[in-house]
Amino acid sequence: MKIPLKKRSDNSYHIEIFNEDFSHIAKDLKKLNLSDHYIVITDSNTHKLFAHDFQKAFKKEKLSIDVLGITAGEKSKKWKVVGKLLSELVRLNATRKSCIIALGGGVAGDLAGFLASVYMRGINYIQVPTSLLAMVDSSIGGKTGVDLPEGKNLAGSFWQPKKVYISLPVLETLPKRQLLCGLAEVVKYGCMWDRNFFKFLERSFKRMLKKQRRELEKDKRSSKKVVDISWLQREEYQKFLIEIIRRSIAIKRNVVKKDEKESGVRAMLNYGHTIGHAIEQLSHYRLNHGESISIGMNYEARLAHQLGYLSEKEVEKQEELFKLIGLPTEIPLKMDRVKMIEIMKRDKKSIQGKIGCAFIRKLGKPIPGFVDYVTAKKMMKVIR
Amino acid sequence: MKIPLKKRSDNSYHIEIFNEDFSHIAKDLKKLNLSDHYIVITDSNTHKLFAHDFQKAFKKEKLSIDVLGITAGEKSKKWKVVGKLLSELVRLNATRKSCIIALGGGVAGDLAGFLASVYMRGINYIQVPTSLLAMVDSSIGGKTGVDLPEGKNLAGSFWQPKKVYISLPVLETLPKRQLLCGLAEVVKYGCMWDRNFFKFLERSFKRMLKKQRRELEKDKRSSKKVVDISWLQREEYQKFLIEIIRRSIAIKRNVVKKDEKESGVRAMLNYGHTIGHAIEQLSHYRLNHGESISIGMNYEARLAHQLGYLSEKEVEKQEELFKLIGLPTEIPLKMDRVKMIEIMKRDKKSIQGKIGCAFIRKLGKPIPGFVDYVTAKKMMKVIR
Repeated sequence: MKIPLKKRSDNSYHIEIFNEDFSHIAKDLKKLNLSDHYIVITDSNTHKLFAHDFQKAFKKEKLSIDVLGITAGEKSKKWKVVGKLLSELVRLNATRKSCIIALGGGVAGDLAGFLASVYMRGINYIQVPTSLLAMVDSSIGGKTGVDLPEGKNLAGSFWQPKKVYISLPVLETLPKRQLLCGLAEVVKYGCMWDRNFFKFLERSFKRMLKKQRRELEKDKRSSKKVVDISWLQREEYQKFLIEIIRRSIAIKRNVVKKDEKESGVRAMLNYGHTIGHAIEQLSHYRLNHGESISIGMNYEARLAHQLGYLSEKEVEKQEELFKLIGLPTEIPLKMDRVKMIEIMKRDKKSIQGKIGCAFIRKLGKPIPGFVDYVTAKKMMKVIR
Repeated sequence: MKIPLKKRSDNSYHIEIFNEDFSHIAKDLKKLNLSDHYIVITDSNTHKLFAHDFQKAFKKEKLSIDVLGITAGEKSKKWKVVGKLLSELVRLNATRKSCIIALGGGVAGDLAGFLASVYMRGINYIQVPTSLLAMVDSSIGGKTGVDLPEGKNLAGSFWQPKKVYISLPVLETLPKRQLLCGLAEVVKYGCMWDRNFFKFLERSFKRMLKKQRRELEKDKRSSKKVVDISWLQREEYQKFLIEIIRRSIAIKRNVVKKDEKESGVRAMLNYGHTIGHAIEQLSHYRLNHGESISIGMNYEARLAHQLGYLSEKEVEKQEELFKLIGLPTEIPLKMDRVKMIEIMKRDKKSIQGKIGCAFIRKLGKPIPGFVDYVTAKKMMKVIR
């Protein structure tokens, strides 16, 4: 007997970038009439900054809203935490018609998305990213994830949000280190997919450094080699900031629409992530995601060079841009290389003991097939 | 910006009913070449009976196979257990290309299916049901589930298996109580969808009882009112057993193909389940699923009668069949009715404090809309 389940489905959704506060979101949801009960999942940092205003905006529109908090940081992305949140949802009388809102950075987004995908076999959710990283990467594409003790994002689901709201004013309060973290993913889009975007970033940040040097000359301290990224939060750089967000999202969008479930081209978005995830995990998340994949991309570029994919000049060019922005490029000396290899072998891209990496063959060009495999020995040679 | 995700997908799969042992499954999977690494999830009872033969059959075909055991019983369907199994999968080097096999009854199937749906964002799985209940119901349709402390199957996913293998010889060792449990779902198909099937069951079991009485007359004990269901395991009833399995699966198949994600007609399969789940949970699973929904169907029929859907005669007709087979029809006297209502309010079908039930308007005919809602007060009047 056959169970015929051929179907057409439409999981399309809109990403809206806007320069207003949260009342815009509440009004829009009221109009869309998506649900009569919203539950916000937010981390402790975001909670302090935005939860009050967020709730106020929803109450003004007479939308029922509850807030569930999680501790800020990757350590909340645990299986156990999801179990607790599921029970909290029952306690709040969440039904199949309720809608979850992820308000926060990548952790809140990954966790809230996963929660929505498994509560009562799946309910709607919405992304309201508040970090640059979440805006340009994790809030888009429907990948949700939970970490296991054995590695990052080893559990999860593909579950698309119903809408993504990118409110630019929230970036004004983002700490500099978090801005940098997001920029690592922005540069990644240039490196692996769009040479023009890479060049544009290179040009723009060099110009920014020059300007900063000129300002500093007045105080006779002009040997600065790294840009002060907090300038991105200045009024005069807002247009530039919007442009890099827009272009990053456009690239991710094009990749995801071709390959929602990462059976082909989407794997490319993992450039730097095989080594990066191992670093992030072994640092016990003291190095954040952006810092870790920044280091990861630099080592995967060196590996790509050894495999004959990438020229030395391109490797250097990439490293220069990361250094210019102020992102790290070297694995901490004391990090246990053997453990790194073990973790990489458990990466979702790895198969039969061989480590899978999304390599590039030129800045802006992935290798054909997007992923290639190296032995643990070859990997060790590069990371040592 | 819009993320366009219109797609066609095909999750179709085959259900195979066969009269051979497990070597048939191993050979078929070898031919299908679905994976190079199989991981069996099985409960402690099934493990004792079948795990050895199952592994042997796979090894003979040179297929890599590992076995993960869980304690038999609903209490294993916990969030925490899934977390442990996920870590076990990593330990066994399961990759995205690995395939999970659910070998066991409903609990193993629900748990293994959920595990497959979240490991590395989803991997393939196969159902090998070993109980009548799992064969005619839980192994088909892709519903997976995990219980929360607050209620049954409150977490889960829709994740279709790649194939369902129904090996008839495994029923030979099924305890009588488990046979009865599965029959409750079989009768459900008749009650809610197929009057002819209901009549066929009525006729067949009456005939079976007559035959049993005749046999017993020789020993002068002929007042028996309940059939001895273990006769289903006799050679002479095999054809009948196959027919009820086939017809049950055919009904479920027709419902699922129309409505994979339970947005309409599929809700009907929950006949008896709103009250049934509350009974099952409050009995701490001492009453099994079949026993609980048998009681549930009888009370939901009485409720349907009070709502003007169902005639008294039909309610009695249904009750008679359940009694004839030996399934319970009354809620245990000491069960806390207030707690039952609380649990029903949290049922996935319930909305805004009103309790949702899948009612019938005639034996074999669901109500239009499939689900209707009653107040807690009305429900209390019936279950008290």
